[in-house]
This record gives sequence, structure tokens and C-alpha cells, in this order.
Amino acid sequence: MKVITSIQEMQQYMKSLKLEGKTIGFVPTMGYLHEGHLTLINKARSENDVLAVSIFVNPLQFGPNEDFDSYPRDFESDRKLAENNGVDVLFHPSTEEMYPTKMSLTAVVHSRINVLCGRQRNGHFDGVATVLVKLFNIVQPDRAYFGLKDAQQVAVVDGLITDFNFPITLVPVAIVREEDGLAKSSRNVNLTPQERLESTKLYESLQMAKREIEKGQRNPKVIEELIKKHITGHTSGVIDYVEMYRYPELDELSELKGRIIIALAVKFTKARLIDNITFDV
Amino acid sequence: MKVITSIQEMQQYMKSLKLEGKTIGFVPTMGYLHEGHLTLINKARSENDVLAVSIFVNPLQFGPNEDFDSYPRDFESDRKLAENNGVDVLFHPSTEEMYPTKMSLTAVVHSRINVLCGRQRNGHFDGVATVLVKLFNIVQPDRAYFGLKDAQQVAVVDGLITDFNFPITLVPVAIVREEDGLAKSSRNVNLTPQERLESTKLYESLQMAKREIEKGQRNPKVIEELIKKHITGHTSGVIDYVEMYRYPELDELSELKGRIIIALAVKFTKARLIDNITFDV
Repeated sequence: MKVITSIQEMQQYMKSLKLEGKTIGFVPTMGYLHEGHLTLINKARSENDVLAVSIFVNPLQFGPNEDFDSYPRDFESDRKLAENNGVDVLFHPSTEEMYPTKMSLTAVVHSRINVLCGRQRNGHFDGVATVLVKLFNIVQPDRAYFGLKDAQQVAVVDGLITDFNFPITLVPVAIVREEDGLAKSSRNVNLTPQERLESTKLYESLQMAKREIEKGQRNPKVIEELIKKHITGHTSGVIDYVEMYRYPELDELSELKGRIIIALAVKFTKARLIDNITFDV
Repeated sequence: MKVITSIQEMQQYMKSLKLEGKTIGFVPTMGYLHEGHLTLINKARSENDVLAVSIFVNPLQFGPNEDFDSYPRDFESDRKLAENNGVDVLFHPSTEEMYPTKMSLTAVVHSRINVLCGRQRNGHFDGVATVLVKLFNIVQPDRAYFGLKDAQQVAVVDGLITDFNFPITLVPVAIVREEDGLAKSSRNVNLTPQERLESTKLYESLQMAKREIEKGQRNPKVIEELIKKHITGHTSGVIDYVEMYRYPELDELSELKGRIIIALAVKFTKARLIDNITFDV
């Protein structure tokens, strides 16, 4: 596995691989790799000649009150995990390498942002989009892999690739779940044993909603109420939001039709869990 | 010469050329090609295996009170000129092809804009940067050619390529001048015979300023006054601005040092002329 820290070296190396006709899969990460990342990495590994992974904690996507400085970092562990999972090129630039001077321009995201978790993270997706423009130009991949756990990020990246005409195929990767349906997350360990039992009701409520829609229910408000009732009735969690939109546009749904997302966030005592399903109506 | 109107076809064609190891030169234009464009085209022709030119009048870079609808267009003439000047691929998309839906994100330029002509064109460079991100991703050139007549645009494109890490070399092309020094422009025909004689004083004043700096003058204000005095003393034109900056950053100069630009705009009765010189102090 090659570890590259210089933008210029990375661009030259990727260009040489492309000239050989190799297909390139790319998994951008902020490091501290966990099972979720490895799912993306394994999928990208199986679909491309070359697998590139970036590890870069991007200051631009953290708000002033967010945890950029304390964001967990463990490059030595990440390096081993990447190597053991078939990564060919690990791109690990410093902040100074990525942002040597104040950016003379940035990407600004206008839609798909003021819903779901993005509503509380002003400017977050501008930072995500800006660093992805840079990383896409540095890595020049054929395919880029993003997990559907953060379905709003996938929607923003879909807009970025489509509207900026990047010659890249976005590969959204399905949420990985525990056997009982709970979406895997490093935050799940913060649930109490009782909450852990209750937490299966989140995905259960999403599946129930999907069944109701398949049976013919077309009123988004009725579906949302159904989910809320199921969660408040069967868990001690406090609902942050239950929302439904067209996907990936994240537009309001006046009617249930086409591709949609149902997403929710629920606060337990020491863990805020998110989950979602996307499907065609 | 290939004429392509589809983004997807253009991307696939350019990708196939790159896989053959061909170098690609790119001249983005809004069409209505004149001698200035042909200078860029000829230079790009001589430096690359493949020469791609785009013709697209980009609505995003026109302000609400600017002339998008009445901007001159003559595709048949452009096509012939391109073919006769060795263009290999002419990319000519419709507005609907480039902007099928409202953009979910755009490029926003933060610096290098509120000086020179940009001061009066709010949002103009955001539109230029956004369409160039798209065109660069569609054409995927090795080199992109821009004329130094619009030195501010070159500065913005320099920031775009550097800060977004496009794997593209920016090639700024020197201003083409008449034998008496006047920068060539389609607007020069709007000068009266008397103004045409006076107009040589613009470049003369810039050269004079350069000589003074070479002789040791280091005060920007003194240089600016020298230029203004030369123009008001020898022409009937009204000075719009005479400005000096670090180049390409377009930062204020407290001291004359490093690479600088001296730029000016002068209004005659029916033509507003611009000119500039960039050089190292």
C-alpha cells in the first residue's frame, strides 16, 4: 500500500494509473476507520482495479462550536486497517497541504441542506462540498463510495457530482445493520441495555411505514404520525425528527410518489441515533 | 472537426482521447469569435495534441441588468473559424444541457473580485467560476487558455485551479496589440479618429510607469498619479480607474514588490477601453 501526503504526488500517481486504463474507486474518510468505512472499502475493492482511500479531517465542515480539535485521530491504526483491507493508495494530506492559504473560492450548497440533520449544521455541507471538489480533482476516481447512513450527505454529493459534471459515478452503499435491524453506529455502545432493546423499534417503525405505503397509504402526515406513535409508544427515546422527502432532491412531498426517503433521529440518554430508508413508491 | 452538443458524449470522447495519452488544450469562449480568441486558439493548437474549444453563452455570469439576451451569437461563423484554425472538438451545449435544473450548489468567489472591473459586476465571477468547474469536468483538459486582456478573470481562474486542485495548467496569453501599442478590442472601432490617436497613450502610460518602477520608484500612489496625469494630459478620455495590485492575488500593495499588475479603464465617447501590464518588481 502506498501512503501519499503530497497533492502533486497523488495527482501524478493517479494520472499514471488512469493512463494504464485502470478503474479507480475512492472512499473519502475523516479516518478513525470503523466497520462502516470497511463496508465501503470492501465494496469499492471489489468493483475497481485500484482502491484509493483518503484520510483527512476537514476543518471546513466543522462549525465554530463543533469538535474539530477533539475529533478522534489514529493514523497508525487506520493505516493497518487500510492495508489489511486491500487499499492500494492511502492519501493522508496535512491541513496545510490542503489549505495552504485562505481559499479564494468555495463551493456553496443551496438546496438539500435545510432539512434533517443539516438544519442544525449551518455551513457544514459547504465544507463537505468544497473538500470533495478538491479530493475529486486530486484522486480523479471513476467511482466514489458514500454510506447511506448519512443519506443527506449522499444527496448533497449526488447534487455535487451531477451539477458540477464530475466524470464520477456515485455509489451509495446500503446501511449495515445488526441482526435485529439496528443500524450500526459507534454510538450504539452508549445505549443502556434497556435502550438497546428499544432501539430496534426505530428500524421497525420505518419498515412498518414502508408496508403502509405499499398497502396504499399516500398521506405523508399519516405515515409520520404512525412512526412517531410507534417510537414514543415503545421506547424511552425522545424524537428529534421524523421526516419524509423526495430523494435525493430532499424536496417537500405533497404526495407520496417516486423515490422517497423516510428519515428519523431519536435521542436516548447518552446517544442520538439516526436511521432512514429510501425506496420507490 | 467534431461538433458535440451533449455533455455525456463530450466526456466520453475526451476520456477516450486521454486514454490514448493525448494532451488536451482547451479554450472556453462565449462564441462570436474574434482575433483575441484566435490568438488563444493558435497558441493552444501549437502546444497540445488535441484542441477543444467551447462555445457557450453562460447565463450565470450575466447580472440582471446585463445583456445576456442580446449578447451576439453567430454559430455558423464560429464553426467555420474554429475549423479553419485547427480546432479538433467544438463543444456547443444548449443552456438546457448545461443547466437542466436549478443548480443545487455553485462556486462562490471570495477574493480577487472587489477590485478593477469586478467591483461593478456583483456575482459575475461566481458565474464564471461555476461554469468553468462544469466545463473543466466535461472537457478534462491538460491546459486551459485565457487572455490577459481580462487579467482579473485570469486571476480568478488561477485561484479556481489552484484552490480546487484541478489537474490543469493555466496558460495566460499575452495581450495582442496594434502596432502603435493599443490593446486590440472589438470596441476600438467605436473610437473617433481623434480618440484613436489619443488611445495609444493608455499603453504608453503603463510602460512609463513600469520604467519609473525599474528606475527605483516604490510608491504606488506616485505611480498611479503619474499614469493619471499622462492620460488626462494627453487624451479626452475620462479615467474610470487606475489601480495596482499584487498579481494574481489582487491584494492591496503597501509596497511595490513581487509580481504586480497595473490596470486601467478609460471612457471615451462611445468606447470604454481597458488595458494592463503584469511584471515582476
